[in-house]
Amino acid sequence: MKLAGYGEDRLVRELTRGLPAGDNVRAGIGDDCAVTGGKSDAQWRLLKTDCVIEGVHFTMRDGPRKIGRKALARPLSDIAAMGGLPECALVTIAAPPGMEVAWLRHFYAGLRRLAEQFNVAVVGGETARSPGPFFCSVALTGLVESKHCVTRSGGRGGDFLYVTGRLGGSLRGKHLSFTPRIAEARWLVQNFPLRAMMDLSDGLGADLPRLAHAGGTGFMVYEEKIPVTRGCTTRNALADGEDYELLFAISPREAKPLETAWKRRFPRLPLTRIGELCALNPSRPASSRGFDHFA
Amino acid sequence: MKLAGYGEDRLVRELTRGLPAGDNVRAGIGDDCAVTGGKSDAQWRLLKTDCVIEGVHFTMRDGPRKIGRKALARPLSDIAAMGGLPECALVTIAAPPGMEVAWLRHFYAGLRRLAEQFNVAVVGGETARSPGPFFCSVALTGLVESKHCVTRSGGRGGDFLYVTGRLGGSLRGKHLSFTPRIAEARWLVQNFPLRAMMDLSDGLGADLPRLAHAGGTGFMVYEEKIPVTRGCTTRNALADGEDYELLFAISPREAKPLETAWKRRFPRLPLTRIGELCALNPSRPASSRGFDHFA
Repeated sequence: MKLAGYGEDRLVRELTRGLPAGDNVRAGIGDDCAVTGGKSDAQWRLLKTDCVIEGVHFTMRDGPRKIGRKALARPLSDIAAMGGLPECALVTIAAPPGMEVAWLRHFYAGLRRLAEQFNVAVVGGETARSPGPFFCSVALTGLVESKHCVTRSGGRGGDFLYVTGRLGGSLRGKHLSFTPRIAEARWLVQNFPLRAMMDLSDGLGADLPRLAHAGGTGFMVYEEKIPVTRGCTTRNALADGEDYELLFAISPREAKPLETAWKRRFPRLPLTRIGELCALNPSRPASSRGFDHFA
Repeated sequence: MKLAGYGEDRLVRELTRGLPAGDNVRAGIGDDCAVTGGKSDAQWRLLKTDCVIEGVHFTMRDGPRKIGRKALARPLSDIAAMGGLPECALVTIAAPPGMEVAWLRHFYAGLRRLAEQFNVAVVGGETARSPGPFFCSVALTGLVESKHCVTRSGGRGGDFLYVTGRLGGSLRGKHLSFTPRIAEARWLVQNFPLRAMMDLSDGLGADLPRLAHAGGTGFMVYEEKIPVTRGCTTRNALADGEDYELLFAISPREAKPLETAWKRRFPRLPLTRIGELCALNPSRPASSRGFDHFA
């Protein structure tokens, strides 16, 4: 049986079954970040790795600065999804021997600029030769107050579902220029009791079922309410992926104060109620399943 | 200018110049692991990423279990080099869509077994498609008592240099089956005031100059004393790389008690004094420079 067609979620579930976990692991495989720390600690540590691969996450036409930026922006989006603040990054690259040194310099310049913007210390990494495409994996640590840490699994039937920004069409440019929602997520967790949160990397059609499944609920989506990027269809919003927006669940009684306070704090970024979690009869968005890495 | 022929150390120095570091970074780029924590903290955190790439660090003939084992063993060796204990791992893989799912299962089985042996919690990772070779990067966290943490940079002129085990010929099998020297390094840092330590991944000929350079010293090697793997030459011991043994510097007055105690504690693993650090006139091993990843 080959990877293609096997199903990414099924594959990850199978491969990671029975892997050793520790007493200090608060959340592990299946969430946006790993969370470690003692149950009664005031702060927990976040840990995430994410990669960009030539021909998968970018092409050489995209320009090295933007690609370096994206390599760090992706794991930053996962730190945001837990309500955390980033801390240290390690950068592993595998580069073909024929690559220009200047290209790599620009790659690091793009990465460095985003690191400065989000106060990330770049503390190490590794450099190896690639016999194939350029590959970069960034490991990122972060911190979150234990009372503010939000996983994927806390949603309950009846919770309202919200997304930030607009979805779809990311490949036309946003996948290289998106802003990780660190500031928005920090404000959310400090001001509202979120039940569950994740970042949208594979598209709402793939990611929302994961959030619902993690909490043992079903979900309903108001398809006509999905905030679609200008020029895109609902199908794009569900299936394109790489939106790097936040998806979260919150109790209905917080809806009104949340929407009012959000508009004051982030007047230029839409926050849209797109559906709700439900206890039974989960229904899927009809049109799409989102991005499967091996399909 | 292409990467090939540019020189790995020079490349890393250039790329990482000016990257933002933080107040809490005790050691960063250029050491085996990044070390974070407050100056007066009793414990510091270690962070390392390391990768294995098809066609560079292994071939498909090597067998998936051994390759999975190696993917984790490499960063474990770096945690050992700081005197630390490993904690959590994240596993990032990029796999070609045509790869057999069974191969990946065996890869994880090999990795899992070593994780259990060294009490490592596998807490997350990422799965992506590779349009080229199979690629795996493991991010590993660890802990070390601040009083026991050993970097590369503490060596002084006159210090004696020791290596564990035997060097050279790793490609005949040891590069897949080596035991990360966690137990040995822990015993060393708990019982002797080491000045500097690193693990030998690129060969003594490349790595020893790095240790000396980090501490601002020169070095002398007693070439005839280098413990060479049976069937190998001194050149192999200097240049093959992937030994994953410990190289450390210690004050001459500790030599006698160290050698006596080591023999009692690790009777089956050689510990060899191979040279010394010197204040001036650094000399290089004549025959080789060790492994350059882009040469």
